[in-house]
Amino acid sequence: MSENLSVLGKARADYKPKLPLSLRTGPLKVLVNQGNATQSVRDQDKIKELFPNTYGAPILTFEAVEEKQTAGMPLNVGVVLSGGQAPGGHNVIAGIFDGIKAVIGGSKLYGFLGGPSGLVDGKYIEIDRELMGKYRNTGGFDIIQSGRTKLESTEQFDRCIAVVKKMDLNAIVIIGGDDSNTNAAVLAEYFAAKKVKCSVIGCPKTIDGDLKNEYIETSFGFDTAVKTYSELIGNIERDANSARKYWHFVKLMGRSASHIGLEAALQTHPNICLISEEIKEKKMTLEQVIFSIVDVVVARYGAGKNFGVALIPEGLVEFIPEFGILISELNEALAHNESEIKKAGKVAEMVEAACKHISEASAKLLKSLPDGIQLQLMLDRDPHGNVQVSLIETEKLLIEMVSKELKVRAFKGKFAALNHFFGYEGRCAAPSNFDADYCYSLGYAASVLVLHNKTGYMASVRKLTDGIDNWIAGGVPTTMMMNMERRHGADKPVIQKALVDLKGKPFKYFEKHRDEWARLEDYMFPGPIQYFGPTEVCDVTNYTLMLEHDALK
Amino acid sequence: MSENLSVLGKARADYKPKLPLSLRTGPLKVLVNQGNATQSVRDQDKIKELFPNTYGAPILTFEAVEEKQTAGMPLNVGVVLSGGQAPGGHNVIAGIFDGIKAVIGGSKLYGFLGGPSGLVDGKYIEIDRELMGKYRNTGGFDIIQSGRTKLESTEQFDRCIAVVKKMDLNAIVIIGGDDSNTNAAVLAEYFAAKKVKCSVIGCPKTIDGDLKNEYIETSFGFDTAVKTYSELIGNIERDANSARKYWHFVKLMGRSASHIGLEAALQTHPNICLISEEIKEKKMTLEQVIFSIVDVVVARYGAGKNFGVALIPEGLVEFIPEFGILISELNEALAHNESEIKKAGKVAEMVEAACKHISEASAKLLKSLPDGIQLQLMLDRDPHGNVQVSLIETEKLLIEMVSKELKVRAFKGKFAALNHFFGYEGRCAAPSNFDADYCYSLGYAASVLVLHNKTGYMASVRKLTDGIDNWIAGGVPTTMMMNMERRHGADKPVIQKALVDLKGKPFKYFEKHRDEWARLEDYMFPGPIQYFGPTEVCDVTNYTLMLEHDALK
Repeated sequence: MSENLSVLGKARADYKPKLPLSLRTGPLKVLVNQGNATQSVRDQDKIKELFPNTYGAPILTFEAVEEKQTAGMPLNVGVVLSGGQAPGGHNVIAGIFDGIKAVIGGSKLYGFLGGPSGLVDGKYIEIDRELMGKYRNTGGFDIIQSGRTKLESTEQFDRCIAVVKKMDLNAIVIIGGDDSNTNAAVLAEYFAAKKVKCSVIGCPKTIDGDLKNEYIETSFGFDTAVKTYSELIGNIERDANSARKYWHFVKLMGRSASHIGLEAALQTHPNICLISEEIKEKKMTLEQVIFSIVDVVVARYGAGKNFGVALIPEGLVEFIPEFGILISELNEALAHNESEIKKAGKVAEMVEAACKHISEASAKLLKSLPDGIQLQLMLDRDPHGNVQVSLIETEKLLIEMVSKELKVRAFKGKFAALNHFFGYEGRCAAPSNFDADYCYSLGYAASVLVLHNKTGYMASVRKLTDGIDNWIAGGVPTTMMMNMERRHGADKPVIQKALVDLKGKPFKYFEKHRDEWARLEDYMFPGPIQYFGPTEVCDVTNYTLMLEHDALK
Repeated sequence: MSENLSVLGKARADYKPKLPLSLRTGPLKVLVNQGNATQSVRDQDKIKELFPNTYGAPILTFEAVEEKQTAGMPLNVGVVLSGGQAPGGHNVIAGIFDGIKAVIGGSKLYGFLGGPSGLVDGKYIEIDRELMGKYRNTGGFDIIQSGRTKLESTEQFDRCIAVVKKMDLNAIVIIGGDDSNTNAAVLAEYFAAKKVKCSVIGCPKTIDGDLKNEYIETSFGFDTAVKTYSELIGNIERDANSARKYWHFVKLMGRSASHIGLEAALQTHPNICLISEEIKEKKMTLEQVIFSIVDVVVARYGAGKNFGVALIPEGLVEFIPEFGILISELNEALAHNESEIKKAGKVAEMVEAACKHISEASAKLLKSLPDGIQLQLMLDRDPHGNVQVSLIETEKLLIEMVSKELKVRAFKGKFAALNHFFGYEGRCAAPSNFDADYCYSLGYAASVLVLHNKTGYMASVRKLTDGIDNWIAGGVPTTMMMNMERRHGADKPVIQKALVDLKGKPFKYFEKHRDEWARLEDYMFPGPIQYFGPTEVCDVTNYTLMLEHDALK
């Protein structure tokens, strides 16, 4: 107990992550195949104009060859962990470390501390073999910590240049989500424009799974995080089915997409799983959402089953169109009539006062909400004066409103509901074998991109359901994934977010089975992530990837 | 995905739980060694008087011998799952099943449905080989479900007799916690008094760990449940240490003892872990508890560490003496002055009104509590008119009061706290190898007790840190663990609850290290339970057991 590693931690430290064949002979013997020039997914003219030096670069794929393709020069690389933690970040760093050390022993890896601010402020440590050894195959970003500073201003970029020059860096690798990778691409363009010879390479990280496209098949960490949540959901399903008296409402992290909920549903077969994208597509009202839940509760009660499990995506209310309208009307109303509305003091009176300044539909919705939520909408506002949607306890909102509607329907059973929220429980889990291998391969691929002075690229490892030998490693120009979007009142080039595709195979599979799952207890209990057992237990990836690739057996 | 087993479930179904050597030759070749007559732990005269037919029976230990010790007659056994789920219940049933089938193939196992009420109402199914096969090594109690009906009245007992006679049962095995085992002993005595030739055998179940003594070294399920919570706590520690901006307050299930929190602390080294028994022993006030937390928060902030993890036992407030007094005074005050107190309507006014009817100390405490908690104390009362202590969200109460005290101390940092509650997440986890083996051995031992017509016994498996070969299986007379306690206004014979022993080695170990754990990030990340890896990863038990047995390496 005196050493800081658990028994599993010690055993797991020895795991050697696997690399695809194309990387297994080391970075020097990698042939970099160049595809055709690329285009951004939309708004090509605009993106090209904004990225004159980095736009249109080719897709790169790596191939192992007999002969060295380049001389082994020492590389100085700085790495940044940006944004929320995701399982496997340490293995990306290990992949970069082993990659550049395999180029030549004198290469050095530096870790910027506390996220992008460490890069701007030049705060870093050297990651040597001993330090790296303590973090292989572990969860978390604690090796250098993470942070949420956004790299956006030219003032920041200029400070980065000063740091790069002082440290004599060949490259910066930014491990982050869609926004961080967007900013990495902007930084790459800025460096290129200023003739700063420092590559900027991105790595696709986010448990949310919304950084995904043809070339980035999945973001790292998604697999492990959802497996961890699914372990718990399975346990809760088993509990529900044993005690037979509770409904469990489980909210899952991830505000902008429902990939986590969908994958968890495919792994555990809950009675209900709400998919935000579907609710938005169908323009469902909150009432319709509540009714859809109540219908299941009532039907199950009718079959003698007064229990169940429902999965709720964290960002749900933002996808309910009328809720979005209510929020923006309230923001407006409170901005102009705050003293009048708040004067009343009591919730009901504040609601009445506010309703005078919003549309009839929004007034009706506001009045239908539980007291606590009304109060929150009136009082909890961010520094810009906006309602803080992220603070709304969606799972409790749903439970209260379901309860209310059951009373309206003269429900004869007792509706006893418990709520859970899973997020922090899985973001720093130690990576599954899949994430451990995938992350290590991404980091190793990044080292090859650095070796070849590529910039404005994201490391890419594809064909992820084909067996690791055949995984295709390479690089994708980040501009290729971009389009223009309205952000904070201005058009900005950003990586397109991947929402749940309602025509995609994972959702179709769910859609086909959900009525049966609602009615029966077809629960699946995935259990805890295993590292040492049979390969079908330890080395499988997730249903989303398998279904997307027609690889589900 | 069409079959109901996950890939891990399929692989795990093949696990063969291990038995101690004394049981490995089958139940017929077990010699039952009888010790001396026993005494109850306290109140011997009273307990003896209440259990004239079953008191004083000897401790039994099993020994494997070459020769059959008894003829193999078919046994009809009914099994009941009572109370909250605990990992391994299905393996107890599997142990009974395999045990009685090894006596003779014609033996039959029946499962009473939905807990003790299934026994009273004669609702049951036969558990055959196929059904049993689906539940080996799985979590949950879903094979026959559980329930919380208490077996206490002679009317219930008489109905049990009718069921026993109709089904021609040789024995009933009741798998439950301290209360259920107490009731099993009362039922055994009743059957004996009425000359009903049906054994009643208990099995020690509860994740809380408070059913424990010299002969019952641990209750089953504790090991798996705490390992599951510790997996999550470790992940959260890693997250806290990566993001470095949140304090996580983690409440852990278990109202009457802090074994779960203590074991989780030994596994994960959090910055703070409150132990209810210590707070009670030291007669700490709520203010002192809050100060103890605030001191750590402030000291860590001073060292540049504005984050941390605190573990909170679910039953905390009931162990704070002044809180107990406040509750009972409020119960009294509300019973006699309800309309006067509630007339005011607003929280602050209700508090003022209530304070006129309670002691000065209680009034001061009540006024120091956050609004929400005050409201709950005034309004949320059970059918008997008592304040519902179990509904108090202790983790939020602590966060609010710590926040308030930090303001008083002019704390310069931002105190951002997140709360979690782990309970349902682990109660139905699939059993660890330890629980799988221990439960199977308990069930198998129960079958031997049944074969030898023993009644009023609990199945016992001891020397649990000595290697399974050497585990000592046998039976302990349940009356031996009993004393008289005041329950609902009457003296009742009950099994003595095992609270955390403040002089015991697990607490001493924690006490020795906790200041260091508070200051540093000595976090341990146990990771998910492993079933297939190295034996030091898969087959170890928990720190509580190892420390109690001087077996920690």
